[in-house]
Amino acid sequence: MEQPLLADQRIGIVGLGLMGGSLALALRGHCRQLVAIEPQPGVRQQAVRDGVVDAATDDLGAGATAVDMLIFATPVRATLSLLETLPTLCPDGRLVADLGSTKADVIAAMDRLPESFQAIGGHPMCGKESSGLAAASADLYQNQTFVLCRSRRTSPGLEALMGELVAAIGARPVWLTAATHDEIVAAVSHLPYLLSAALMRVVAAEEQWAISASGFRDVSRLAGSDTRMMLDILLTNRAAILAALEHYQADLAALAVILQQADEAALAGWLAEARVRHAAYRRHRSAPPISGSSPVPTGDDA
Amino acid sequence: MEQPLLADQRIGIVGLGLMGGSLALALRGHCRQLVAIEPQPGVRQQAVRDGVVDAATDDLGAGATAVDMLIFATPVRATLSLLETLPTLCPDGRLVADLGSTKADVIAAMDRLPESFQAIGGHPMCGKESSGLAAASADLYQNQTFVLCRSRRTSPGLEALMGELVAAIGARPVWLTAATHDEIVAAVSHLPYLLSAALMRVVAAEEQWAISASGFRDVSRLAGSDTRMMLDILLTNRAAILAALEHYQADLAALAVILQQADEAALAGWLAEARVRHAAYRRHRSAPPISGSSPVPTGDDA
Repeated sequence: MEQPLLADQRIGIVGLGLMGGSLALALRGHCRQLVAIEPQPGVRQQAVRDGVVDAATDDLGAGATAVDMLIFATPVRATLSLLETLPTLCPDGRLVADLGSTKADVIAAMDRLPESFQAIGGHPMCGKESSGLAAASADLYQNQTFVLCRSRRTSPGLEALMGELVAAIGARPVWLTAATHDEIVAAVSHLPYLLSAALMRVVAAEEQWAISASGFRDVSRLAGSDTRMMLDILLTNRAAILAALEHYQADLAALAVILQQADEAALAGWLAEARVRHAAYRRHRSAPPISGSSPVPTGDDA
Repeated sequence: MEQPLLADQRIGIVGLGLMGGSLALALRGHCRQLVAIEPQPGVRQQAVRDGVVDAATDDLGAGATAVDMLIFATPVRATLSLLETLPTLCPDGRLVADLGSTKADVIAAMDRLPESFQAIGGHPMCGKESSGLAAASADLYQNQTFVLCRSRRTSPGLEALMGELVAAIGARPVWLTAATHDEIVAAVSHLPYLLSAALMRVVAAEEQWAISASGFRDVSRLAGSDTRMMLDILLTNRAAILAALEHYQADLAALAVILQQADEAALAGWLAEARVRHAAYRRHRSAPPISGSSPVPTGDDA
């Protein structure tokens, strides 16, 4: 099978919101053509008028027929149902990728595609509180981690093409299995979102907000996330999220006992461990990534 | 009793860390003299050399004797024990204020001061992750809320003086009882800190951090707070914090049940409530404060 090159690709982006719109802006000049498959007429018109894409349609079948590669930038459960219709819409197959925030269900759906398809899962670790094409920007992916997950339908050629695409938008590829990805994002992304949302639910009075400062603002920020997207994420990653939540609740329960007992030594130890780990996290995050890293996929987790 | 004016005051700041140092910088030119009472020789030398204060001593008795007003910018439990020694150190009394993060214990200690003293509690709702005089800045208090709490030793003259001081450093006074203050900050400040610290404790592996993004960074930020200060805060506000923590744990437990049952409608409702409240909070915070407000103290909570 010949190696597909990014410059030759006609790419269809399904869903022109924050992530899909930013991908289109970042891919301008790197591929042969960009087509939006997007249900909202206003978004389609604006995207074509502003040159975000070359063409737009609301019809996945028509869009798929007109391109070489489809990239789903839709909420996870929308991607799952669209992937099911794909073999009927274009029986001759396509290159397929996605940007979904959970990967096990998406990879399972990709595994079920006929052999005429090639498919790979992706999850760029970036975003914004605001959503929609209006919030999109060409540099959203710049210097961000872009997780890639193989499916049964991932060919070496598609791996290389996706690596080229990730490099073109300025992101850093990290290869993970879908299960490992889902377990890690449950802890570093979905759990923080739920903690933030619960804080906003229990601290909900104006007289409290009036006395709040930057700490409350930052810890509650994720409560403003798009609920449609988060609902799909939570429902497609329940097991890993419940495990992370249980671990967290146990740590809070132990803290409550320490506080009840006014156990100063235990409390000091509890706080110190958090601060030491935060300092290690800060050092880790400020360390520069391995320069020019575009690791050769090995089949192992990164 | 004659009305003390800020311009006439010789002010002793006890503890020249982030808060005390920033207060000194913000008060330059607004009072007659600034004296630091600070145990660390290096900090004293630097503060005098850089003109942060006019003089410095490590002796609370000597410092108290040389000034009209003492402002404690020490961790809460240090303030509590220093307040106990004060009547012996200067039997003729002084004006006293503090910047402590919890107020009930401080106000109770102020209540116990002899009648020769006048005393008022304060809590500026600002801070930084970094601590120490090196992190201090003259604008730390600018446009920030400054909670004021009366004690049995708060005279109308001291109320007016403290109002003048808060205005001079650019902050907005809000009058609360100590109990109301402690209950509110348990929810908007101490609970978020504990949530942040617990997150950092349970998400502590480099392979997790490598995939984390800005959401994790923001929700975990408070885990880096000064543990000495936080230990004092938590131990002097246990009842209110335990109540806030219990409320929070109940909301997380309800969420876990919803997730276990994959109850989509209930989950959507849970998320939507968080987002609606976050939007209301954002609107509340972006609303400009009542212009020039320096409310006349009424004895009621703000």
